[in-house]
Amino acid sequence: MTIFGESHGPAVGAVIDGLAPGIDVDMNFIASQLDLRRPYGKISTSRSEADDFSILSGVFEGKTTGTPVCIMIPNTAQKSRDYSATRTLARPGHADYTAYAKYHGFEDYRGGGHFSGRITAALTAAGAIAISALRGKGIMIGTHIARLGGIDDRPFGQSEADLNKDILILSEKRFAALDESAAEAMRSAVAAAAEDGDSVGGVLETAVTGLEAGIGEPWFDTLESMLAHGIFSIPGIKGIQFGGGFDMADAKGSEYNDPFCLADGKVRTATNNNGGINGGISNGMPLIFRSAVKPTPSIYKEQQTVDFMERKDAVLSIHGRHDPAIIHRARIVVDSVTALVLCDMLSMRYGTDWLAG
Amino acid sequence: MTIFGESHGPAVGAVIDGLAPGIDVDMNFIASQLDLRRPYGKISTSRSEADDFSILSGVFEGKTTGTPVCIMIPNTAQKSRDYSATRTLARPGHADYTAYAKYHGFEDYRGGGHFSGRITAALTAAGAIAISALRGKGIMIGTHIARLGGIDDRPFGQSEADLNKDILILSEKRFAALDESAAEAMRSAVAAAAEDGDSVGGVLETAVTGLEAGIGEPWFDTLESMLAHGIFSIPGIKGIQFGGGFDMADAKGSEYNDPFCLADGKVRTATNNNGGINGGISNGMPLIFRSAVKPTPSIYKEQQTVDFMERKDAVLSIHGRHDPAIIHRARIVVDSVTALVLCDMLSMRYGTDWLAG
Amino acid sequence: MTIFGESHGPAVGAVIDGLAPGIDVDMNFIASQLDLRRPYGKISTSRSEADDFSILSGVFEGKTTGTPVCIMIPNTAQKSRDYSATRTLARPGHADYTAYAKYHGFEDYRGGGHFSGRITAALTAAGAIAISALRGKGIMIGTHIARLGGIDDRPFGQSEADLNKDILILSEKRFAALDESAAEAMRSAVAAAAEDGDSVGGVLETAVTGLEAGIGEPWFDTLESMLAHGIFSIPGIKGIQFGGGFDMADAKGSEYNDPFCLADGKVRTATNNNGGINGGISNGMPLIFRSAVKPTPSIYKEQQTVDFMERKDAVLSIHGRHDPAIIHRARIVVDSVTALVLCDMLSMRYGTDWLAG
Amino acid sequence: MTIFGESHGPAVGAVIDGLAPGIDVDMNFIASQLDLRRPYGKISTSRSEADDFSILSGVFEGKTTGTPVCIMIPNTAQKSRDYSATRTLARPGHADYTAYAKYHGFEDYRGGGHFSGRITAALTAAGAIAISALRGKGIMIGTHIARLGGIDDRPFGQSEADLNKDILILSEKRFAALDESAAEAMRSAVAAAAEDGDSVGGVLETAVTGLEAGIGEPWFDTLESMLAHGIFSIPGIKGIQFGGGFDMADAKGSEYNDPFCLADGKVRTATNNNGGINGGISNGMPLIFRSAVKPTPSIYKEQQTVDFMERKDAVLSIHGRHDPAIIHRARIVVDSVTALVLCDMLSMRYGTDWLAG
Repeated sequence: MTIFGESHGPAVGAVIDGLAPGIDVDMNFIASQLDLRRPYGKISTSRSEADDFSILSGVFEGKTTGTPVCIMIPNTAQKSRDYSATRTLARPGHADYTAYAKYHGFEDYRGGGHFSGRITAALTAAGAIAISALRGKGIMIGTHIARLGGIDDRPFGQSEADLNKDILILSEKRFAALDESAAEAMRSAVAAAAEDGDSVGGVLETAVTGLEAGIGEPWFDTLESMLAHGIFSIPGIKGIQFGGGFDMADAKGSEYNDPFCLADGKVRTATNNNGGINGGISNGMPLIFRSAVKPTPSIYKEQQTVDFMERKDAVLSIHGRHDPAIIHRARIVVDSVTALVLCDMLSMRYGTDWLAG
Repeated sequence: MTIFGESHGPAVGAVIDGLAPGIDVDMNFIASQLDLRRPYGKISTSRSEADDFSILSGVFEGKTTGTPVCIMIPNTAQKSRDYSATRTLARPGHADYTAYAKYHGFEDYRGGGHFSGRITAALTAAGAIAISALRGKGIMIGTHIARLGGIDDRPFGQSEADLNKDILILSEKRFAALDESAAEAMRSAVAAAAEDGDSVGGVLETAVTGLEAGIGEPWFDTLESMLAHGIFSIPGIKGIQFGGGFDMADAKGSEYNDPFCLADGKVRTATNNNGGINGGISNGMPLIFRSAVKPTPSIYKEQQTVDFMERKDAVLSIHGRHDPAIIHRARIVVDSVTALVLCDMLSMRYGTDWLAG
Repeated sequence: MTIFGESHGPAVGAVIDGLAPGIDVDMNFIASQLDLRRPYGKISTSRSEADDFSILSGVFEGKTTGTPVCIMIPNTAQKSRDYSATRTLARPGHADYTAYAKYHGFEDYRGGGHFSGRITAALTAAGAIAISALRGKGIMIGTHIARLGGIDDRPFGQSEADLNKDILILSEKRFAALDESAAEAMRSAVAAAAEDGDSVGGVLETAVTGLEAGIGEPWFDTLESMLAHGIFSIPGIKGIQFGGGFDMADAKGSEYNDPFCLADGKVRTATNNNGGINGGISNGMPLIFRSAVKPTPSIYKEQQTVDFMERKDAVLSIHGRHDPAIIHRARIVVDSVTALVLCDMLSMRYGTDWLAG
Repeated sequence: MTIFGESHGPAVGAVIDGLAPGIDVDMNFIASQLDLRRPYGKISTSRSEADDFSILSGVFEGKTTGTPVCIMIPNTAQKSRDYSATRTLARPGHADYTAYAKYHGFEDYRGGGHFSGRITAALTAAGAIAISALRGKGIMIGTHIARLGGIDDRPFGQSEADLNKDILILSEKRFAALDESAAEAMRSAVAAAAEDGDSVGGVLETAVTGLEAGIGEPWFDTLESMLAHGIFSIPGIKGIQFGGGFDMADAKGSEYNDPFCLADGKVRTATNNNGGINGGISNGMPLIFRSAVKPTPSIYKEQQTVDFMERKDAVLSIHGRHDPAIIHRARIVVDSVTALVLCDMLSMRYGTDWLAG
């Protein structure tokens, strides 16, 4: 998997190598996933692109061929305004300064360049194929906004059946809170922050059902390692925890350990504080993890900063379109990355043909 | 880097490939790091091995040669007791069942086999060389027990100078809390859990100073991705967060963003909620992250479980030696993995010779 | 580096990750390299595409940014004729049957699909950037047709200065034989084979000058390993040898060993039977290797084959456009792959910024 | 797979990661393979070590566990003689100078260090497990000395049955020529070179039977790429060709193409000039390749060289034990590397459990 593109370049895209042959590629589903990632209503940026995508390779007669799939999404809505005035002012919380430190000034700085959230459109399109492939094998993925602006969503269902219902519900929501009144309160919190020229973050919670026991490697490619590796590539993610994680820092072993039990002859655990993973390997329970999403760094409030080329203090006011929250858009990216990582790990374990059925 | 070994096999060890030539290998420092990882006083297992290690390759006349370094630590204290009685009872929170699911019964099940904390001895020895190499380039790493049993340690110093002092303090502590009275209370909490046949977990906090801006790759090898990948390989880690992470889930952008400022002509940030990383790339501020350590799964209390071969319910009482807490030992493993990951990323950026000076 | 595309899909392309920032991207040079790869005169296929390429990412203001470069070359000249009649007849020497065995019939079979030589256009475009970058560091690459149809080209110059002259000559030749009368004879041999409905192969010889001593890893990434890995990805390559190789199978150690000597204070060897590599690592002498190119498998002669779906014998007559020789086009692909491999290995050794100067 | 060790360090060894669980580990077979690699009779070095090996991990109750297998072979026979006199004289054809260029003088220079043929003992031991695993799946590997000192061995049998007979014959030969009178003449050629203080090389030919069609990736991990990558890691290999290779440089397409045919309902080819590979993917025919082995660089004859530290001309006379030929020992290393590469590729295709049966 390779991701390419810049916010204000000709296109963003992804190349996925190693996909099994014969996976159905549903163009409508890709389009609908891209749509869920797009800005939404008043609580999002006013930059809104149609996200027309082209599949340049690796798909033939509606199915993957087994060779690399290149998906390209042209950039059409970028404004050609002049970035030179603020080019050397490091936007706090953004990658302007670190990109400069890494690329020595050769980076495409317009609109965040390669660090723009725009790039996640490519991930989403690629992820849509992975999500479809996993569904075909009975593996379901869903993410909800577990917390935003101090408001908690209702928890995921406990049983696998209830979880699957929740995942289905989420797949049809533009704003992914399970409890509609919580959703309403969260949207109000975003709107309030927006009015204040400010932004919010929150916590996403992801569930994966239908994953068999035995996936993951003890050193160094545990299931937690691989998922964390992928999830931390998503801009704005600053934390991840599996099962109890930080929330159970004060728990005792007798509380945290998940006693094993049998259900329909299958090995299960009575609780799921380990988030479906023991010793880095899936145990057959639902995979549960939470990701911390920091508040969008682009705010309208005036901020202190420096001119990193001239090495002098500066004051920055950011204008233009941007999101007071990205968490409701990021959830589809988290689903996508999760699916891509799982496809990789399942192919490793069961061979390159497995996903094709 | 490859880790090998089982708890009750002949030896555990590690092979580190890609180390620069000419790095000083201080056998005493390796021994002292291994010593810090070893069980300690009443709050640890009574299995205590001398951890005599041998370097089988890659070191000549006290320095790395640039070829793979193999460190081997023979297992000497394993008891040859009979594991067959409990072989098929899945210990809750442990990898017995998942190892069985993955390896189909061919796994070495004695004492946790390849999933034993014992394997981290090899990581620690390898990490000691990496830690030394980084120190030679002015990069310091230290981890304290930020929270255990509801007790918080004092926070890390804020300035880089104070942080370096704290790291120095930690390097000489067997029980890594910065505040001695907090340490005392934590040890009591461990002892109380032990008396109760139970165990505790907690939160580790790691600081890295001296790392230049510009380290990390946007997709998919961000600094967070790479560190999380490594840290989640350590048994018992269930969460990681950089900077504010989950703790600032309710913060606004104006609170979370770290305004840039100048200090001695260098670009710095006034706060460090991003944990030293913007857009997946180091920004020159101290790297700060927290890891959630779950309570040791081995407890003396009776637990419900299943016999995963016979597929029937069972009750498990674990005897033998084990730790009521491993967090105070895990911190040196976190330091080690951090160092190994950073060596990798620095070599990628500056070339294979850089670490040699 | 990822290569994508099918002969009859919308486009072929490549994504190069890990390029240093600040490398000049000369669109004219890319175009001229693509031009050298294109069919030529009477001795090539009559399919001839303009090879208009687009750079979708990773280049800003004429230089690489350090982020992935995606080059796309649309397919414009593919004929929409019906492939279904011969879809299940395995063309001898081609990948039809092996693709079917691997991809279970989901492969895009039109015109060889992902196995088409067409894909090497993407490699050539990507390679052009690598070749430019290396030239900037004084590293020159050139390949001539050492043998074709029983005719030998004159050998490369022995001194580094003469080699560089030869490389310059080759960069301006459409048909890369150093000796013009040999070139003439070779072209006649190709034409004769074409007239006979047959095809020819031959031997390419590549020289690289300006590479410092010390590049390569003993296990398992020797310079020979890495170059061979890359070169064998090129369709039609069936052999590679460094320096003397098979040609000196009967030599004695006293003949094969290259005695070291000094030239202008630099360590050199008097002969170069080791092709510039000792122990898998460059020794500072010119890198010299030969690649065996098999005759183009597409011939007009009637051939025995099987219908691999119906499992019955068949006779195949291939019509349509194809090359009686590809060796004169393959040489630019060999140059490109060599450059890409060397960029990788130099970046590993000297860091990601090195190539930028 | 990682290889570690130096000729005169404490041990050499290998760690193999990714082996399937449940593979039989036959200690006697490992020992017998090591024995075939050892010096033999008058035509080998007088350094002869027992090659006692230990398996430190990854094997339990006679079978692989699925976790990394570490095999260690202590060095016992190294002489503690003084290397300092010749330390800075580059032995022609050896890696002394290139190791110095790469490792800046920190390399363990005694006896070739990490570049010593001694390291192939570890490869051989690791390869023995891979060879066993493949045999269990009906995949047989054998290598003969196709040419040495101008003497050709008889060719491999053409049918798969005859090839399997030849492979069996080879597995019991210390000196792997199929024709006993050719073997005799080859040994005489080695002895003659030895008497003259000189050395010989030659050509090895390897056959693999029982490999299904469909193994290999078009870009960039073709079967040829992967095998060549591995084989070129073996010291002294300077060329590799698959099927016809360089030997058919002058052939026409009509001669080189292998017409497909049916045999017992299976797709086969009438000839095998492509060496069992089309488009980088196995076609179900025997895999056939040749490797060029250069003459052992260690010769007793006086040689011109330089002192690479003092940068002055020097004359070198090498004393001590060394081989006038290594080709008869290298063949077992070629078998081993081939097996390890194939295990990798088969696991990729069929999943990590496949090899276990």
